[in-house]
Amino acid sequence: MKKSNISNNTIRRLPRYLRKLDELGKKGVMRVSSQELGNQLGFTASQIRQDLSYFGEFGQQGYGYNVNSLREQVAEILGLTCENAAILVGCGNIGKALLCNFTFSECGVALKCAFDTDKSKIGTHINGIEIKNSEEILEYIVENGVNIAILCVPQEAARSVADMLRASGISAIWNFTNVDISEPHENMVENINFFDSLAVLKYYVTETKK
Amino acid sequence: MKKSNISNNTIRRLPRYLRKLDELGKKGVMRVSSQELGNQLGFTASQIRQDLSYFGEFGQQGYGYNVNSLREQVAEILGLTCENAAILVGCGNIGKALLCNFTFSECGVALKCAFDTDKSKIGTHINGIEIKNSEEILEYIVENGVNIAILCVPQEAARSVADMLRASGISAIWNFTNVDISEPHENMVENINFFDSLAVLKYYVTETKK
Repeated sequence: MKKSNISNNTIRRLPRYLRKLDELGKKGVMRVSSQELGNQLGFTASQIRQDLSYFGEFGQQGYGYNVNSLREQVAEILGLTCENAAILVGCGNIGKALLCNFTFSECGVALKCAFDTDKSKIGTHINGIEIKNSEEILEYIVENGVNIAILCVPQEAARSVADMLRASGISAIWNFTNVDISEPHENMVENINFFDSLAVLKYYVTETKK
Repeated sequence: MKKSNISNNTIRRLPRYLRKLDELGKKGVMRVSSQELGNQLGFTASQIRQDLSYFGEFGQQGYGYNVNSLREQVAEILGLTCENAAILVGCGNIGKALLCNFTFSECGVALKCAFDTDKSKIGTHINGIEIKNSEEILEYIVENGVNIAILCVPQEAARSVADMLRASGISAIWNFTNVDISEPHENMVENINFFDSLAVLKYYVTETKK
């Protein structure tokens, strides 16, 4: 199967497989069946086998999967073993929370620096990352071969900053603005949308009460 | 169709419909066809018609949808028009970012208070929300009929706090810990998992380069 035909749902399950395999590996578990992996993740064994089959042959009949080797292979499929340079744009609360707490290197992302328009922030550092003047973004991207932008600007600036990033050659945007900026390359924008997420939870809370 | 049979994918599209209808309504657009709505959202017209058909009859052949009325109906389907009491547990960076920036009321969520174990935070307020001692969580939930917990504690505390919340009667958890706490009621846990999200983006970035 052409990789471009692999469904987004399959891709979205891979990080969950990876985290579970990581957990099992840390517990000293050496091998796991698709059945056991499925039980622990709430998927069927056939779902797991089918998802992995798009990328090659991994398990062995009667043996199952080697935990560490499958973990490494899933990490490689996800592209976590190669490094991409990233910048963070907008150092408000959510930007700060990411700078302080998120381990970008686990995803194969090298966070180079952050940008803000606030003069009192420019030149300071958060968790070792320098905050630069937003006016320098375009030049910085071109000079440093940046692949990924983490968008944490206020909503009213989201679309114009996204357009500017694309004009500078960045196609991959991790979008925290709650504004749809997906067009034209849907898969190259990954949204963390708090409103959508809480709205879905509210649906199930409300349904359960009926 | 029984509501419990409606796919999670359908439910996950509803907030996007709602946000787009909101945007159109604010622009003064009175009506919209499923074709036009689909174009703007990157879905097919038939996808939208099918999703909405699970919940009733909304559009009119040849007229399309009344924007404001459909917006109100989708909000009602998602349960955003009725209110649920919520608490936030763990006031680190991500907890603070939510307290400072997220408009809970837009989701029909009344955030009552926050909890932390850090004595220097207890008794203070963030954006008008009081931070109480975590030891009081159980009592508070029972006395105030809390439905939803927003879990922002450190990873090592995630499972034990989730268990404690469930023991106190809370089933709906908005989970920011990056730890899987889904079992046993998958739909009543809504995860914001930064690692999974960035890993998916890395997949597409890596694929595109191949």
